[in-house]
Amino acid sequence: MPEITILTEADLRAVVGLGDDERRAIEAVYPVISAGRAAMPPIMRIDVPAHHGEIDIKSAHLPGWPGIAIKVSAGFFDNPARGLPSLGGLMVVLDAETGVPLAALFDNGHLTDLRTALAGAVAADHLARRDARRVAVLGAGVQARLQVLALAHVRTIEHLTVWGRRGDRAAALATDLGDELGVAVAVADTPADAARDADVLVTTTPSTEPLVTVDMLHPGLHVTAIGSDAEHKQELAAEVVRDADRFVCDETGQSGRLGELRAARAAGFAVDVVELGAVIAGDAHGRTGPDDVTVCDLTGTGAQDTAIASLAVERCAAAGTGTTLAT
Amino acid sequence: MPEITILTEADLRAVVGLGDDERRAIEAVYPVISAGRAAMPPIMRIDVPAHHGEIDIKSAHLPGWPGIAIKVSAGFFDNPARGLPSLGGLMVVLDAETGVPLAALFDNGHLTDLRTALAGAVAADHLARRDARRVAVLGAGVQARLQVLALAHVRTIEHLTVWGRRGDRAAALATDLGDELGVAVAVADTPADAARDADVLVTTTPSTEPLVTVDMLHPGLHVTAIGSDAEHKQELAAEVVRDADRFVCDETGQSGRLGELRAARAAGFAVDVVELGAVIAGDAHGRTGPDDVTVCDLTGTGAQDTAIASLAVERCAAAGTGTTLAT
Repeated sequence: MPEITILTEADLRAVVGLGDDERRAIEAVYPVISAGRAAMPPIMRIDVPAHHGEIDIKSAHLPGWPGIAIKVSAGFFDNPARGLPSLGGLMVVLDAETGVPLAALFDNGHLTDLRTALAGAVAADHLARRDARRVAVLGAGVQARLQVLALAHVRTIEHLTVWGRRGDRAAALATDLGDELGVAVAVADTPADAARDADVLVTTTPSTEPLVTVDMLHPGLHVTAIGSDAEHKQELAAEVVRDADRFVCDETGQSGRLGELRAARAAGFAVDVVELGAVIAGDAHGRTGPDDVTVCDLTGTGAQDTAIASLAVERCAAAGTGTTLAT
Repeated sequence: MPEITILTEADLRAVVGLGDDERRAIEAVYPVISAGRAAMPPIMRIDVPAHHGEIDIKSAHLPGWPGIAIKVSAGFFDNPARGLPSLGGLMVVLDAETGVPLAALFDNGHLTDLRTALAGAVAADHLARRDARRVAVLGAGVQARLQVLALAHVRTIEHLTVWGRRGDRAAALATDLGDELGVAVAVADTPADAARDADVLVTTTPSTEPLVTVDMLHPGLHVTAIGSDAEHKQELAAEVVRDADRFVCDETGQSGRLGELRAARAAGFAVDVVELGAVIAGDAHGRTGPDDVTVCDLTGTGAQDTAIASLAVERCAAAGTGTTLAT
């Protein structure tokens, strides 16, 4: 009799977080992507314009990984008026050897939040200066918070600056993170103010207009752009992508369609692109010295979903959490 | 607190079958597809060559339908050696207004089997002669069986002929269906023998070579081709598609990529294609008289999955079946 394990957000929060093992699990998938060994189809997207909704489906098979995750992300932007969160989702995990469903993860998007934050930490770990101390984040939502917390595992943060469209939310996030991490904090009035003294700048907004312009680049800066994951989104001016000493992305095709590479190419700029996996594998250089400006665009991949879901399922099984049903 | 309903194959078998309401639910989606009102992205496919596996993901949003199904089909062809079925799958249903997950349906592919059989009955209902009495089926598997049972709801079957690659399985299926439907049966030695006196011929095989050739067409015949759902599959010779008085398909783009239209176009034949939804809606003619040869190619659509899953979830809710968990 086949069995399926049902895992809730609470089950998952109890076993996976932003720790080193989780980050290494995410790090491990990038070389697989860059070597062309991940079976990772383009994102499937279903638009529901009547309710300002969109559903994205991602998946990937990674040779050697025990499971294949299929991740459903829903963004329905009329939801707040109904008292519901805009973003949600779930994952299902199939046995990679038999295709048999193993688990359904009703995480309400939490695993996506985690793997996205962990990816930011992986990018910074490989591309930011070793002595980076000053961090700035654009955006004041869940992802801004998680990016900073994940980054604190790979660099010693001494100062954090937050910029957000809503100053009150930026101030609240800065206060929270200052308390949690024990670091000095500031709230910036503009993205330029946030970027000015930063060693690491992380952009986490759904902006459709560039927030980071080329005049904000300064020697030694590393920028990780998280927000753009659709054709109409953009956080970095095309010139930022062009003028960085190194432009890195998680998956070139996707960055060109949905990420920061899109606008740069549309502007006619020839960009020398290297994938994060090639940098991690040592097949391509990242930062070559303390004064380089590095930029990493992360659009988010099904491979990360398969990695975090596989880890979560394994840990829940070890801990005996979840509900198992005969199907 | 959000809740999710978990439905097993047994839960689903108890509430949905091959009845008239189910068929009408499937019939209703075709005009939506043909009017261009379904948001139905191309099938997402993940190949797992190390285990002779493939995963197909289908989905569709139909305006006015309460749910959006995301259907995962797995075919892992090393499974029989492990004592597992080759084919399986599951569906999840999201609320079409909010994107919130409503239900996970661990149906092991049963709902796909049903909606595919119901689609065959819809096609025959609209395209076969009203007085069709003699049915032939190529293939002797689950889908062959279900196609005949569904067809019995729309035409009065008096005689059934089964052809299968394995004669023993064809004989067993013929005997079973003869008993179940109370009709005369025969087993054919060749596809041509099966087709000879048929009013309705249904092809349900994974063949990669044409089984139905143009010499088998005779006045009044209706052919429904179910099997081809991938680039390498083909049940009908290209000339069959060309020479039919009417060639109908469920979705033109998909039939051209994965169905019987592909080989006909590759042969350079100009095929006058009409979608089943246009025939159902009365926007295009189907059969114009008793001697027409009609052909319908069904590749299977996410819209059908959304229709059958929505009906199943509604019926399980009304019956109070399934397991509800807080997420």
